[in-house]
Amino acid sequence: MLDLNAYIRDVPDFPEPGIVFKDITPLLRDHAALAQTLDALAEGFGDAGITRIAGVESRGFIFGVPLALRLGCGFVPLRKPGKLPWTCSRREYELEYGRAALEVHTDAVDADDRVLLVDDLLATGGTMAAAVQLIEDLGATVIGASVVIELAFLAGREKLACPVHTLLTYA
Amino acid sequence: MLDLNAYIRDVPDFPEPGIVFKDITPLLRDHAALAQTLDALAEGFGDAGITRIAGVESRGFIFGVPLALRLGCGFVPLRKPGKLPWTCSRREYELEYGRAALEVHTDAVDADDRVLLVDDLLATGGTMAAAVQLIEDLGATVIGASVVIELAFLAGREKLACPVHTLLTYA
Repeated sequence: MLDLNAYIRDVPDFPEPGIVFKDITPLLRDHAALAQTLDALAEGFGDAGITRIAGVESRGFIFGVPLALRLGCGFVPLRKPGKLPWTCSRREYELEYGRAALEVHTDAVDADDRVLLVDDLLATGGTMAAAVQLIEDLGATVIGASVVIELAFLAGREKLACPVHTLLTYA
Repeated sequence: MLDLNAYIRDVPDFPEPGIVFKDITPLLRDHAALAQTLDALAEGFGDAGITRIAGVESRGFIFGVPLALRLGCGFVPLRKPGKLPWTCSRREYELEYGRAALEVHTDAVDADDRVLLVDDLLATGGTMAAAVQLIEDLGATVIGASVVIELAFLAGREKLACPVHTLLTYA
């Protein structure tokens, strides 16, 4: 087993002074590390009855689509406003400075869908909480959230009512 | 075999009047259609000696990462300016109105890498041509481009010196 932490690069002062960014590109460029990450994300969900994976633009697409293929379900993209071409449902949410929004096509999930949310990073949890609401607005059930990296000191997990599964936790 | 065309939704007048947008979300949400798309993208590349897949933000991530997993190589994200946190190489390119740019980390590929570019759509080819240049700027070899949908009437293929492999062609 590889130590996946060794494939996460700390980049200081990005995107702004004082923030240490967790860069996943060394993990992505290495096939063995990428494959082990997908194995670990899929673990424990084999019998969860997941019918769709939803991922937030754009790094949620990176892990969400291969996980959907692995678990035998379809993939639902959640995108920034104006990117999805068809009829959308929208949720706005607070950022540290200002507001943001996510959209999903209204036919992206069915009421009997059991959805797993996937992203690379759980930080303050604002984006993930909006993603949960978007899926629930369409009547489907969110059975959990699965992320590669959790910045536990930002307590994003506390914004989420669903179970959260993380691979790498930074305290 | 599914008819993948049946999973592409035409959305008229998006993103602007007169454009018919090819919406791939019906294909993504259906596991069988998504899996068949990946099978078809991987076909013919088993013995091409590909060492990395590169994909352009954000829909190139959707197909590029699972294809990298399938072909046993790593994945390299090409992103809009300001998104990648580490040292970047950049290429600007012309759009119909104005200019755009793509960036890649300078350590994303090695000089002996053989890179396959992946995207959902080949339209005018400007983005894909910039992606080829970015990878070649780092000294690696682009062995081809693989896309799900080609809008052949926009002749994007003519902007590319490498072989182009497409699954669905609209004349």
